[in-house]
Amino acid sequence: MKKILVIHGPNLDLLGQREPKIYGKTTLIQINQELKKIAKKKNVSLTIKQSNHEGEIVDLIGTAKKKYEALLINPAAYTHTSVAIRDAIAASGILTVEVHLSNIYSREEFRQKSLISPVAKGTILGFGGKSYNLGLLALLDLI
Amino acid sequence: MKKILVIHGPNLDLLGQREPKIYGKTTLIQINQELKKIAKKKNVSLTIKQSNHEGEIVDLIGTAKKKYEALLINPAAYTHTSVAIRDAIAASGILTVEVHLSNIYSREEFRQKSLISPVAKGTILGFGGKSYNLGLLALLDLI
Amino acid sequence: MKKILVIHGPNLDLLGQREPKIYGKTTLIQINQELKKIAKKKNVSLTIKQSNHEGEIVDLIGTAKKKYEALLINPAAYTHTSVAIRDAIAASGILTVEVHLSNIYSREEFRQKSLISPVAKGTILGFGGKSYNLGLLALLDLI
Amino acid sequence: MKKILVIHGPNLDLLGQREPKIYGKTTLIQINQELKKIAKKKNVSLTIKQSNHEGEIVDLIGTAKKKYEALLINPAAYTHTSVAIRDAIAASGILTVEVHLSNIYSREEFRQKSLISPVAKGTILGFGGKSYNLGLLALLDLI
Amino acid sequence: MKKILVIHGPNLDLLGQREPKIYGKTTLIQINQELKKIAKKKNVSLTIKQSNHEGEIVDLIGTAKKKYEALLINPAAYTHTSVAIRDAIAASGILTVEVHLSNIYSREEFRQKSLISPVAKGTILGFGGKSYNLGLLALLDLI
Amino acid sequence: MKKILVIHGPNLDLLGQREPKIYGKTTLIQINQELKKIAKKKNVSLTIKQSNHEGEIVDLIGTAKKKYEALLINPAAYTHTSVAIRDAIAASGILTVEVHLSNIYSREEFRQKSLISPVAKGTILGFGGKSYNLGLLALLDLI
Amino acid sequence: MKKILVIHGPNLDLLGQREPKIYGKTTLIQINQELKKIAKKKNVSLTIKQSNHEGEIVDLIGTAKKKYEALLINPAAYTHTSVAIRDAIAASGILTVEVHLSNIYSREEFRQKSLISPVAKGTILGFGGKSYNLGLLALLDLI
Amino acid sequence: MKKILVIHGPNLDLLGQREPKIYGKTTLIQINQELKKIAKKKNVSLTIKQSNHEGEIVDLIGTAKKKYEALLINPAAYTHTSVAIRDAIAASGILTVEVHLSNIYSREEFRQKSLISPVAKGTILGFGGKSYNLGLLALLDLI
Amino acid sequence: MKKILVIHGPNLDLLGQREPKIYGKTTLIQINQELKKIAKKKNVSLTIKQSNHEGEIVDLIGTAKKKYEALLINPAAYTHTSVAIRDAIAASGILTVEVHLSNIYSREEFRQKSLISPVAKGTILGFGGKSYNLGLLALLDLI
Amino acid sequence: MKKILVIHGPNLDLLGQREPKIYGKTTLIQINQELKKIAKKKNVSLTIKQSNHEGEIVDLIGTAKKKYEALLINPAAYTHTSVAIRDAIAASGILTVEVHLSNIYSREEFRQKSLISPVAKGTILGFGGKSYNLGLLALLDLI
Amino acid sequence: MKKILVIHGPNLDLLGQREPKIYGKTTLIQINQELKKIAKKKNVSLTIKQSNHEGEIVDLIGTAKKKYEALLINPAAYTHTSVAIRDAIAASGILTVEVHLSNIYSREEFRQKSLISPVAKGTILGFGGKSYNLGLLALLDLI
Amino acid sequence: MKKILVIHGPNLDLLGQREPKIYGKTTLIQINQELKKIAKKKNVSLTIKQSNHEGEIVDLIGTAKKKYEALLINPAAYTHTSVAIRDAIAASGILTVEVHLSNIYSREEFRQKSLISPVAKGTILGFGGKSYNLGLLALLDLI
Repeated sequence: MKKILVIHGPNLDLLGQREPKIYGKTTLIQINQELKKIAKKKNVSLTIKQSNHEGEIVDLIGTAKKKYEALLINPAAYTHTSVAIRDAIAASGILTVEVHLSNIYSREEFRQKSLISPVAKGTILGFGGKSYNLGLLALLDLI
Repeated sequence: MKKILVIHGPNLDLLGQREPKIYGKTTLIQINQELKKIAKKKNVSLTIKQSNHEGEIVDLIGTAKKKYEALLINPAAYTHTSVAIRDAIAASGILTVEVHLSNIYSREEFRQKSLISPVAKGTILGFGGKSYNLGLLALLDLI
Repeated sequence: MKKILVIHGPNLDLLGQREPKIYGKTTLIQINQELKKIAKKKNVSLTIKQSNHEGEIVDLIGTAKKKYEALLINPAAYTHTSVAIRDAIAASGILTVEVHLSNIYSREEFRQKSLISPVAKGTILGFGGKSYNLGLLALLDLI
Repeated sequence: MKKILVIHGPNLDLLGQREPKIYGKTTLIQINQELKKIAKKKNVSLTIKQSNHEGEIVDLIGTAKKKYEALLINPAAYTHTSVAIRDAIAASGILTVEVHLSNIYSREEFRQKSLISPVAKGTILGFGGKSYNLGLLALLDLI
Repeated sequence: MKKILVIHGPNLDLLGQREPKIYGKTTLIQINQELKKIAKKKNVSLTIKQSNHEGEIVDLIGTAKKKYEALLINPAAYTHTSVAIRDAIAASGILTVEVHLSNIYSREEFRQKSLISPVAKGTILGFGGKSYNLGLLALLDLI
Repeated sequence: MKKILVIHGPNLDLLGQREPKIYGKTTLIQINQELKKIAKKKNVSLTIKQSNHEGEIVDLIGTAKKKYEALLINPAAYTHTSVAIRDAIAASGILTVEVHLSNIYSREEFRQKSLISPVAKGTILGFGGKSYNLGLLALLDLI
Repeated sequence: MKKILVIHGPNLDLLGQREPKIYGKTTLIQINQELKKIAKKKNVSLTIKQSNHEGEIVDLIGTAKKKYEALLINPAAYTHTSVAIRDAIAASGILTVEVHLSNIYSREEFRQKSLISPVAKGTILGFGGKSYNLGLLALLDLI
Repeated sequence: MKKILVIHGPNLDLLGQREPKIYGKTTLIQINQELKKIAKKKNVSLTIKQSNHEGEIVDLIGTAKKKYEALLINPAAYTHTSVAIRDAIAASGILTVEVHLSNIYSREEFRQKSLISPVAKGTILGFGGKSYNLGLLALLDLI
Repeated sequence: MKKILVIHGPNLDLLGQREPKIYGKTTLIQINQELKKIAKKKNVSLTIKQSNHEGEIVDLIGTAKKKYEALLINPAAYTHTSVAIRDAIAASGILTVEVHLSNIYSREEFRQKSLISPVAKGTILGFGGKSYNLGLLALLDLI
Repeated sequence: MKKILVIHGPNLDLLGQREPKIYGKTTLIQINQELKKIAKKKNVSLTIKQSNHEGEIVDLIGTAKKKYEALLINPAAYTHTSVAIRDAIAASGILTVEVHLSNIYSREEFRQKSLISPVAKGTILGFGGKSYNLGLLALLDLI
Repeated sequence: MKKILVIHGPNLDLLGQREPKIYGKTTLIQINQELKKIAKKKNVSLTIKQSNHEGEIVDLIGTAKKKYEALLINPAAYTHTSVAIRDAIAASGILTVEVHLSNIYSREEFRQKSLISPVAKGTILGFGGKSYNLGLLALLDLI
Repeated sequence: MKKILVIHGPNLDLLGQREPKIYGKTTLIQINQELKKIAKKKNVSLTIKQSNHEGEIVDLIGTAKKKYEALLINPAAYTHTSVAIRDAIAASGILTVEVHLSNIYSREEFRQKSLISPVAKGTILGFGGKSYNLGLLALLDLI
């Protein structure tokens, strides 16, 4: 049974209450339930982590290659500032899909650049919680 | 039965022969066949157009709202240069998903900006021909 | 009887339905009727074209000098991207007035530059459909 | 009888003698006479001021809303440097039309930005002294 | 009894009526009354000036060192454009606190730079009329 | 009794010994004592944290809304680099005042931009340890 | 007998009458005659097209590889704005030489960048109509 | 007897007391005395003005051509911000020499651009009060 | 016996497996062994830490001055993004040498800026694992 | 018999051995032989110089007008850095054609600007050693 | 008797024939004669050099401090590109005045920056050959 | 016996007297002596050159590959301006280590870019004269 690591970046634990005009009312629990439903149907196993700590996320990715087939990540705020997470993905060499709830390219200028995109296989953005579902489908298709 | 317009931008007719290292070996015909298969399963009707002419694409989008529920578009080279296509999408108000075969954000700098993203509901990029499939699934989920 | 060419650029056929908060509710037909009324009163003849095709607009301007005294143009989206239309105006040497419905200098940054202004005699912007009327009056005063 | 305030910015008192290749040979007196002729025909009253002092122009605009229906302004050199005049227009909330004798967008780069345009209803530029006439007509149409 | 000079920059005389969404409904008179109340309690004397003229503000500051212990200034629009006021503060050597009603760093880009901050002891911004009160308290603490 | 959270960002534990020409000789313990004195007088309760970890600060803020009325934060080095802390403040929706010991706008260019200011109610900078006192007074006035 | 495609970009049909100070008095017919004379002598066949339409030029290049050995192109205004033509040359993989009548690198800044140069084998610019002759000689030498 | 206008820009009345490390200890009175001594020897008449008001300086220059042969100006802070003074010099057409006490090109970046230099005949900078003497000698040589 | 702190930044635990074309095949264990060999020979004691956490590295440096004579650091990804580590080095005042395995100035543009260099005594880059050896020799020479 | 000066800039003596992927395997001797063959056929005389010294090249060009009809130059590395060579060409007024072996506009960014192009009659680039032949033909056609 | 070194930078040997619209018709010999006349009157000795070689100029300046009291230099093209000459002046510590024939700040953008000004005592520009005379007078006044 | 070429760039002959705060008091002779001592111990032969002439340095490097194993270079001022030296190193293909006395990345902005680093194997900077020693050790380790 294939194993996939899902990482939710900083502040995603606040989903649902956080600026709902931008991020919608779906909570992280609901997103995770939908992901698990898909995983069950497709017969893969998911390990899901949320962290506000850049270093923790780097730790997780650095050792991910040995335990998981692929990585589904929403780097959230670290999308725009973390060279360390980018390097972790490149260093581990794990197959990665990047997702975003909102359309980062129509927001503030400092959000219109992803340090992660160049090391991800593909990116899905703007579909709210559905971005994760599409990302998981894409990953399953790739592995 | 719901109708969806699919637009392939400039040079996509050359897919398969065009710089296969970047764009893969899948041809446009194969992509269209996959899309039609999904459409059939999901019981929607697709109208598929390819054009190298910015003006033609603007014409198509301008009148699309009356005939179609949604637009799936790979604007290709016009992604980076066409304010007219952007304005057409905004003016027609049609629900739009943008797809790209390659990860435009890891290519030349002039390709790292999409004029279309801010007027699209969401964007999917980097999955080769699969980007279209994911885009169609996303659209169907939205309408 | 003097002849004047009026060119409406891309997406202006959608006026009235297109983002009315920015462009107002006046339709292109109404704008043209107002222009014809003025033309009649001032005893000049108008030829009015709308096109979404940059190449078509270049074709029209390239041969305009032989048939028309002057050109009234709203280049719309091509204002910001078309060196070809700019070159056509300079090459044909026709007396040109540029108009815009909205105040392009208080919108997105990519709209705050006009490639056309430097080859136009003058520019009128921000008065909605009235920009055309003022533009026609200005042209008549100049010829 | 409606009242309109006309403000001529710095150095416009020198018109006619000032770099005639750029600004033409018309004097400010002639421009004012033309404006008064139009005003008389349209039955409005004009108050016309010229000042080289940014602070004086800010003073005039700050209290203009109580005395005038609208403002016709050629901010001249202050177009490019005065946040204070921009704020005065926004603060007073007076209906404003901005005019320029020359086409500022085909001159030196530091002149290709107007701090005033975003707070004006509309802008007219490049028609020499006629820019004022068109501006007054536009204002009368708006009030 | 210590004397403090308070300078209100351009357009602050319009407070209360000026774009209340940004600047609040408090008038300059109310702000001045609050300042005087604090001054009385703290046993200092205030001289309060409002001017729309950059030159006048430079005049005031140039001679301030001889008459006042400190300067409390809201340079308003001149914050972003006046090297002359900056030089006046540096030249006079007077202890200066800069205040702003709104948070200038979350507004238009041209407002996100203060020429005055580098020559002020400290800056307080974003608290509406209360910014002045905090500024006065800070000044009193410093002298 | 109202509760306020105070967060000291990275390296502030070194205050007093750290580059005293820029940051002064006051230690963090002294600053905290002054804050507690004010809190006692004003009858509010303070919870004070210092952390060098961006993720820890994000954790603290994410859950702060439920426990505290307001946040007083000196983000120190993270002022200029942390989108995650900015997002945490916006996501939690807690009333926030930002303080800085030094005048960041007169230092190195990379320090002249605050990612935090746009989500804070107000900012106080340049008064050394007194910036905290003023910030607490401002917060108490706001709640 | 080898076949070569020659494409003249937008406004080149106006040559001779178009800003003769920059582009010279030679007409497009004269340039074509010179090219044909050389072709005859060198025993190759030329197909010559002029188009103002970006899409038409993309169409021509997309299918050129099957019919022609090489492409001689003056992209004119599209040099600076057309990613689509650039992609067409790269996608078709046809051997390409780029020519310009004027020295684009000593003109307006927006003309000092060629999107086409990086996909052309070589570039010749500044020799007026002779640029074409040199370009044809270069192509013949290469094939 | 030839007449020359000397204008000292903002804050120059504070010379001697103002940041002596940058501007030296010479006062404006001493500079004027030296200038008058040279003028007497060379048999020309000087009119000397100091103003902190941009508008006043524009007023002076606008009418200077009729009364004076030439202008010697130290625009001080307005060097970097005043398009109005630049336009006044160009509009009046008066022969102008620009002087600076300090070497503006080795100071803060915002001082490293002179809006005045392009309309002055020549510029002298960095020699302290002696810059004026050299400027006057240069002017006398030119007229 | 002198004590030196060695800090390996994020992802350096993956050395050997991480993009070997850029970083070589040497593992962190091998690098540490070489360093210890030199230390033994030179009779100094090394404390070696690897961390992916910016905050942990700041913690380590903040207290380093009391325990160590000097710091040898490869800040890896944090080189380009961490103002906090820079401030920690400056605040602790510890003698610091910065090393990099690869030549960061010939890689992606975002890697071509070191926030750490200005607070380090010296920098050594591009020699793979040998950069550490040279760095240690340099440190020993300095203390 | 007409005389032409040919200048090869820095490092061109290393041709053939220098980065053959970029510059090809042709040596400078071979290029010179081809040039001499053409010169003989066209009955002109060539003087050929290679220099690594900017000053020497400036010396050569400064006096070239008196001895030669025209200049064929490959400024190599000095293309991007030498204002002195540019000024020498402009000062001597000699008819100049600039050639480059590689397509400088598809290489590193610092090579994508030629200081020489604006003072050359025309430029030929990207044809390897053949660029010289085409350049000589172009020169002969011009004189 | 005091000794002064005068250095004329590249291409100044061509003065009089070089672009006379910009540089005037005076030759270098005439400039030198005027300088010698002044030197004689002021009883100083001049050593005058002209060189097109950056290295030669660096050689001259490096040893100048031992032989000369001061340096009068027109760095010409090297003004904008030579860090080496700048470093030579700073390294030798010789008192230096920089002169330019033309007003470099009203010419091409790449000429609007002087690497030399920050290490010169003062700069004189725009007075043609007279710039040298004024520069020599300034130097004599300083030593 | 292996031979190594050492090149000292412009102004390094002045070491010891040149701005000692930045470059230290060590003279070039002392640096060379230290280098020779190391060379003797390691049994390699050094050829040491100092030159202020960019062209001379290019000459030296162009032929170095035939005579030397490796190059140790401090390009000094040419670090930031010489594409020619960069090209010479790349063209000759000689193994190169770049050293700097000072930390160029904490000085003026124009010194914060090295054209040489991308073609050097590694770079050592900031250790004063010791940078050379470390560079030589690094070279010996590499060959």
